[in-house]
Amino acid sequence: MSETDAVLFANEAFYFAFARRDLKEMAAVWAEDAEVSCIHPGWDAIHGREEVMQSWHAILRGAGTPEILCHTPRVTFYGELASVICYEEIGGGYLLATNLFVRERGRWRMVHHQAAPTQGEPPEADDEEDFVPDKIN
Amino acid sequence: MSETDAVLFANEAFYFAFARRDLKEMAAVWAEDAEVSCIHPGWDAIHGREEVMQSWHAILRGAGTPEILCHTPRVTFYGELASVICYEEIGGGYLLATNLFVRERGRWRMVHHQAAPTQGEPPEADDEEDFVPDKIN
Repeated sequence: MSETDAVLFANEAFYFAFARRDLKEMAAVWAEDAEVSCIHPGWDAIHGREEVMQSWHAILRGAGTPEILCHTPRVTFYGELASVICYEEIGGGYLLATNLFVRERGRWRMVHHQAAPTQGEPPEADDEEDFVPDKIN
Repeated sequence: MSETDAVLFANEAFYFAFARRDLKEMAAVWAEDAEVSCIHPGWDAIHGREEVMQSWHAILRGAGTPEILCHTPRVTFYGELASVICYEEIGGGYLLATNLFVRERGRWRMVHHQAAPTQGEPPEADDEEDFVPDKIN
């Protein structure tokens, strides 16, 4: 697996944990040694692993938590840090996310997440939908 | 100057360029060698230096561009990358920003900026306002 694929895998694990409301998997996604922070849409900034995990507990255990899909993730490496910028399809609209990962104990783990509403939409969303059947065949 | 102060200086240079509508300074703030990206509030994601600078041209030359102040910047280092999370006071409300910097040609330069509205506000904003006169005296 290339490093880019390994980062995309970590990014997918984040959205998988979100979609499944899986707090244990969400805890595994986030770094334990490095400093972590999170900016949920409209919220205050959250610093520290315990506080970030509490926020995910509130979101994933909340009654109104919508479905989520990740589109067109784009990976960039800056030394030991990997950045993923992607669209999130949620509640019939789109958010844009900045997801940051560092290598910790042999795998990429999230150190920062900011998501916020956008009036844009993923440029290749149509291509993705067309691509799926070809991939299966 | 400590590395943290050097990053805060680069972060301040970004807000100074924004506040002064100084496109030349804004161009100097952003990295030239590393990949850059930008997510303005509500916009699509922008990738590439030319496209990012075009967006700043549109914003800084726009008639309705509001004043901006940076509050409570918080620096974290991830290897060769520095992250700054800060509040932006703009148009009577607050945004939260993720600003990322790498060292390039001897100084810290911005590689990513995401800003989005928050219903929160900087926790130490009152302290900052009290602090300014003491600093001058």
